[in-house]
Amino acid sequence: MKDKRVEHIKIHKVNSGTINETADKVAVEEPLEIQLAYSTSSGRMIKNIAVTMRTPGNDEELAAGFLFTEGIIQNAADIRETKQPGADENRVLVELQENVQPVLSNIARNFYSTSSCGVCGKASIDAIRSVSQYGMEHDHLLINASVLYHLQDGLKKQQKVFEDTGGIHAAALFNREGKFLMLREDVGRHNALDKLIGAALLKNELPLNNCILLLSGRASFELVQKAAMAGIKLIVAVGAPSSLAVEMAKETGITLIGFLRNDRFNMYSGKHRVTV
Amino acid sequence: MKDKRVEHIKIHKVNSGTINETADKVAVEEPLEIQLAYSTSSGRMIKNIAVTMRTPGNDEELAAGFLFTEGIIQNAADIRETKQPGADENRVLVELQENVQPVLSNIARNFYSTSSCGVCGKASIDAIRSVSQYGMEHDHLLINASVLYHLQDGLKKQQKVFEDTGGIHAAALFNREGKFLMLREDVGRHNALDKLIGAALLKNELPLNNCILLLSGRASFELVQKAAMAGIKLIVAVGAPSSLAVEMAKETGITLIGFLRNDRFNMYSGKHRVTV
Repeated sequence: MKDKRVEHIKIHKVNSGTINETADKVAVEEPLEIQLAYSTSSGRMIKNIAVTMRTPGNDEELAAGFLFTEGIIQNAADIRETKQPGADENRVLVELQENVQPVLSNIARNFYSTSSCGVCGKASIDAIRSVSQYGMEHDHLLINASVLYHLQDGLKKQQKVFEDTGGIHAAALFNREGKFLMLREDVGRHNALDKLIGAALLKNELPLNNCILLLSGRASFELVQKAAMAGIKLIVAVGAPSSLAVEMAKETGITLIGFLRNDRFNMYSGKHRVTV
Repeated sequence: MKDKRVEHIKIHKVNSGTINETADKVAVEEPLEIQLAYSTSSGRMIKNIAVTMRTPGNDEELAAGFLFTEGIIQNAADIRETKQPGADENRVLVELQENVQPVLSNIARNFYSTSSCGVCGKASIDAIRSVSQYGMEHDHLLINASVLYHLQDGLKKQQKVFEDTGGIHAAALFNREGKFLMLREDVGRHNALDKLIGAALLKNELPLNNCILLLSGRASFELVQKAAMAGIKLIVAVGAPSSLAVEMAKETGITLIGFLRNDRFNMYSGKHRVTV
């Protein structure tokens, strides 16, 4: 079966002064429009919620995860059905249940946002912080540092599209013993995480307070916030965190680890969850 | 002078079973709200245009570059003044000239967009492609491959914040002989490029059709589009391009190079500009 996440192209490779035409693979990037249908006093309403540049595949998970981590829906049960209107592969319509009102207050009117760090769609700086429904009540996660040493190997084995293209982000879940649970890949790192959280949401597996979240790249504010929305308590990034990612992790009681290299890593917050 | 792009924090470093508290630096990530003031028939209007998570510094360039690469303004002369209302470091107000109307048609009403790949703010999939005012008329750029071999060294020497934190993207300009011209760094890769293009715009140096654009990471659709808006004809990325980045480069006549490693690189489009 053709993998719609990978495109086969011809390129020219230059190596020490020689040039050769060769076959290559790149990660597919295509827009996905997320639409929401819900009931109002004047009837059924369809609203365009977002256009995101994503790698095709797991689009229902991406839409569900996005709506959830942005605080627009609260539960998988809020969703009645997800459709592709007109069999358009770059559009997803999420139909909410009759009695469910989406929380659209963070969606600005006459206003838009941009960021490679993902606060898109937040109406103002004051509204950046969403609030997770998952608190500290079942927070007993304790991990031995040695569990983290093998996470990267576990990730590499699963990163099919990255292996093919070198051009894609990954978000993966492991259990507290370091056993691989699930991976999602996307050209957009927020999409990879939204797909992962969306998959867990649709399987009714939230909160993810007993899991380890592994990010293939850097940790931004927005990634920490999305993780917090899903009740994640331990984030391990292969790359660096930003200042606001560290601040957000501290505020939400998340253990944030960065620069994981086998048996070396940095802990930026919540070190009580890791025994060395 | 304190570098507001870098935050000094305490972390815990784990290394082969030992744990130590140590001083560390992280790249600063803070929201920037971009506001636009312009005249309408009913008086002066202020509109919130975007919130972007950025690394502080070069905020005027970022605002100008963003407005330009999104097609909202066309020239540096469109801008009368840039202010920080209330001395708020996380807000920039761009005052347009009396006779200048911003092109807001791409800004959706009751609609928002998100993406780590940056099509934020485009009203629909159909509206993703902006059109550059710079065509092919002065397109004589021809580069010897050997010029590219040393670009990465040139970049590393200039990447001050990356050296400190390992957590920041860079966009840099070199001339056709490979001489370093300018660098901007940001936690968001689109911001780094918007700052760079904004700086060139404010110095009246557009189009950049005689320059080499070097990107420290991957090349997405949106980065290629922003480069096209500034008339850039040669993009060299250290990382992988996406499928749509390649397509966009071909459509706009841009030479797109990826996976630069000293004397090795891949050419995805426009190989006529590079002699080997």
